[in-house]
Amino acid sequence: MEKKLDQLKQRLLEVNDLNAAAALLYWDQSTYMPPGGAPARARQLATLQRLAHEKFTGPAIGKLLDALRPYEESLPYESDDASLIRVTRRLYEREVKVPTELAAEMSRHGAESYQVWTEARPDNDFERVLPYLEKSLDLSRQLADCFPGYDHIADPLIAYSDYGMTVATVAQVFGELREHLVPIVQAITAQPPADDSCLRLLYAEDQQLAFGVDVIERFGYDLKRGRQDKTHHPFETKFSIGDVRITTRVQERFLAEAMFSTMHEAGHAMYEQGVNPAYEGLPLARGTSSGMHESQSRLWENVVGRSRGFWVYFYSRLQQVFPEQLCEVPLDVFYKAINKVERSLIRTDADEVTYNLHVMLRFDLELAMLEGALEVRDLPDAWRARFESDLGMAPPDHRDGVLQDVHWFMGQIGGVFQGYTLGNIISAQVYEAALKAHPAIPDEIEEGEFGTLHGWLSDNIYRHGRKFTASELIERVTGQPLTIAPYIRYLKTKYGELYNLR
Amino acid sequence: MEKKLDQLKQRLLEVNDLNAAAALLYWDQSTYMPPGGAPARARQLATLQRLAHEKFTGPAIGKLLDALRPYEESLPYESDDASLIRVTRRLYEREVKVPTELAAEMSRHGAESYQVWTEARPDNDFERVLPYLEKSLDLSRQLADCFPGYDHIADPLIAYSDYGMTVATVAQVFGELREHLVPIVQAITAQPPADDSCLRLLYAEDQQLAFGVDVIERFGYDLKRGRQDKTHHPFETKFSIGDVRITTRVQERFLAEAMFSTMHEAGHAMYEQGVNPAYEGLPLARGTSSGMHESQSRLWENVVGRSRGFWVYFYSRLQQVFPEQLCEVPLDVFYKAINKVERSLIRTDADEVTYNLHVMLRFDLELAMLEGALEVRDLPDAWRARFESDLGMAPPDHRDGVLQDVHWFMGQIGGVFQGYTLGNIISAQVYEAALKAHPAIPDEIEEGEFGTLHGWLSDNIYRHGRKFTASELIERVTGQPLTIAPYIRYLKTKYGELYNLR
Repeated sequence: MEKKLDQLKQRLLEVNDLNAAAALLYWDQSTYMPPGGAPARARQLATLQRLAHEKFTGPAIGKLLDALRPYEESLPYESDDASLIRVTRRLYEREVKVPTELAAEMSRHGAESYQVWTEARPDNDFERVLPYLEKSLDLSRQLADCFPGYDHIADPLIAYSDYGMTVATVAQVFGELREHLVPIVQAITAQPPADDSCLRLLYAEDQQLAFGVDVIERFGYDLKRGRQDKTHHPFETKFSIGDVRITTRVQERFLAEAMFSTMHEAGHAMYEQGVNPAYEGLPLARGTSSGMHESQSRLWENVVGRSRGFWVYFYSRLQQVFPEQLCEVPLDVFYKAINKVERSLIRTDADEVTYNLHVMLRFDLELAMLEGALEVRDLPDAWRARFESDLGMAPPDHRDGVLQDVHWFMGQIGGVFQGYTLGNIISAQVYEAALKAHPAIPDEIEEGEFGTLHGWLSDNIYRHGRKFTASELIERVTGQPLTIAPYIRYLKTKYGELYNLR
Repeated sequence: MEKKLDQLKQRLLEVNDLNAAAALLYWDQSTYMPPGGAPARARQLATLQRLAHEKFTGPAIGKLLDALRPYEESLPYESDDASLIRVTRRLYEREVKVPTELAAEMSRHGAESYQVWTEARPDNDFERVLPYLEKSLDLSRQLADCFPGYDHIADPLIAYSDYGMTVATVAQVFGELREHLVPIVQAITAQPPADDSCLRLLYAEDQQLAFGVDVIERFGYDLKRGRQDKTHHPFETKFSIGDVRITTRVQERFLAEAMFSTMHEAGHAMYEQGVNPAYEGLPLARGTSSGMHESQSRLWENVVGRSRGFWVYFYSRLQQVFPEQLCEVPLDVFYKAINKVERSLIRTDADEVTYNLHVMLRFDLELAMLEGALEVRDLPDAWRARFESDLGMAPPDHRDGVLQDVHWFMGQIGGVFQGYTLGNIISAQVYEAALKAHPAIPDEIEEGEFGTLHGWLSDNIYRHGRKFTASELIERVTGQPLTIAPYIRYLKTKYGELYNLR
């Protein structure tokens, strides 16, 4: 049996190495590749992805998984070997159901669609992307139909990123959350807006970056096993447990941009760096779901990075880096500026409170398109109507409306947005559990120490990688299933104090 | 037939994409990879190289080549299709003769041996590398024995990098060259050494780099299809015709380091950028041999970059960049400094005249080891003896003696050094032909213009890629077989004038 398991690992490592190479090709394309490299790079990426898919879904891995079933059943559920076989089987059974041609067509179409979007967005041209979006919808439906027996056509798409969740469970959670959010947003936005002008002075790029790197090193991001570069859109990527990189973007005239995107991506990266090294190169060596991953980025970015306690320690340091801009700005003004709540157009710029309304709007429109209740050509009108009713303002154009997010223009509609709000919810639930285990964490944060929090997250979440599903992990870590209660408590406490709500 | 040819191209593109990805993994490892990435990176590189080898030597390509033979024979030798089939067959027939296990073992051993060398060299520890060198010799012999019927055991190894050359032909050329070189070296080194102290002041890194990039852009290196980064050892690498990168290293206290390594690598890179775009991703899209490649790097570095005419234009610009260091240094003093001839220990630091003696020494020792006439354990003594007789000085240690070059410590002994001197010879022969076609080239260089030279090289050498062998190309371009006469004329003219010889 050990021999079979070794054979399985060898084949999985081969697939992993192809995928890791593809990830590096993508990282390079986003950071340093000269423009002339683009056409060949697209082909090279497609070749690697196709070979990885072929190697993974070929008969060898299926046979090994069958042969290993008795071994798996002889082991405890939590053992590394059983978990490796179980998770590999789940991924394998999903992947073999998708015909190679469909996977290839989605990949090709996604690249093409993305290219068209990058030109259509600045031109505010929805007509131009319409046929691509229609094809994306068609392909997404075909993908879902590879998994018959679903309750909702979006279920298989959600299962890709948030295994274990369905439209029904997500809609239930979102519905509850919405009931609490809307009155909070209304109460806050009835007040005069916070003054965030102190963030919009001139801040030198290099100093912004250096400050951010200093912060995330203190969080626990290991620069011997990672690095930060600049890209148009920030992201985290992993080539091995020993090489997990992040990117950021800097705005000279908006201090919050690089700072919080750096903390956010470092949250993702610490999750990946913290996986048990024994899982290197195997399917267990990944964060377990989109929602769980996002919970870690949001925990460090928001729950920690936008907390008053964090700035009790770091604000004087930031003032030392930017004395001219900040020496006259009191901590409370700065703290309120970085937590300014307002109705706004762009999801990625939205504050923690309104952010979830942006996500829910997209989630519901995705479902409507997949159900056939909304035609793609009517999407801009539906967007505008929903935006007005939820956020009380109308997008002035497509650019900052329906064309703002890249996700739908990467070739898939459905299953791509729910993770953001699930992440917010989980971040608070997990943080409450961390505080229960270690009540001194907030005091440590006020002293610029994050070792206890990082250690607790590593032991309880990071090191498990994909061994447990998100639901299993939440239960293990918090003793409860997914619940919005801690998140509501978090928002009410923080913003209640900031805006003197009741 | 067209369908078969398309199938062949598809399979060759797949192999190319795996190799291009491996090249990017290597580039990243040398430039930006954090140290923690090393173990997984070695595995990922090995996986990609193994898959590329398997894909190339699998039965499919052999069958297609057989099926395409009548088509190839129906076409003129120079046609792109015939050349693609011919060159692919040559590479295929070579690659299939090497058992996959031997290829894998050489790759593994090479990586391990390199690692040991990086630690043993600073420690001056030959004993440590001895068993690795012995294994490299054994593996190199095994590799050669995959190609029975050779006259000399090094012939198949030379054919890898300089197809068409053999020990006999190289030794003949080197012997002739040596007869001319030795008296020149003696005559020059009998004189007091040139003063190169002006190169050894403090020169800021960024300005050195910016000056170098300005020069190579004027040469014709296209930064939209390339870029320069810093590495420990400079190199050129290619991911596609649209993405050919170079690296350099900078010494704050030696102006010649970055400047000439930049020109050198740009020479390699312009060759690769200049290949006919129709060959993208196919075996024709490569420089044709090690010697021909080196001729292009040495042409731009030495024949152009160390010429007086070049500095007639550029010296005042360099003085503007570094006024404090150079405003009092006349052009003639600078020109003599960058062409200082001296007996020295390190090949890569050697001047154009003595450089070839360093290469010949290595070439002869390689042959002696492969023949069994020299035991690996006796290599340091043999090195010392030959160094004293050829260069009139003894290396004080192994570090700057037999351990100085990485080549033998990458897993192969034989076939790796001859290209450097062949390159010097070819550079002069090719440049003479360029001047014959365009006598105004030297005048243009004095005005900082390189368009005619770059255009002529592109048309006559670069664009052909690997369509012609080096010998064929030299004949086509110069109307003659390889000859040392132009190189001797070049050296005698340049150094005769610099050192008032005869």
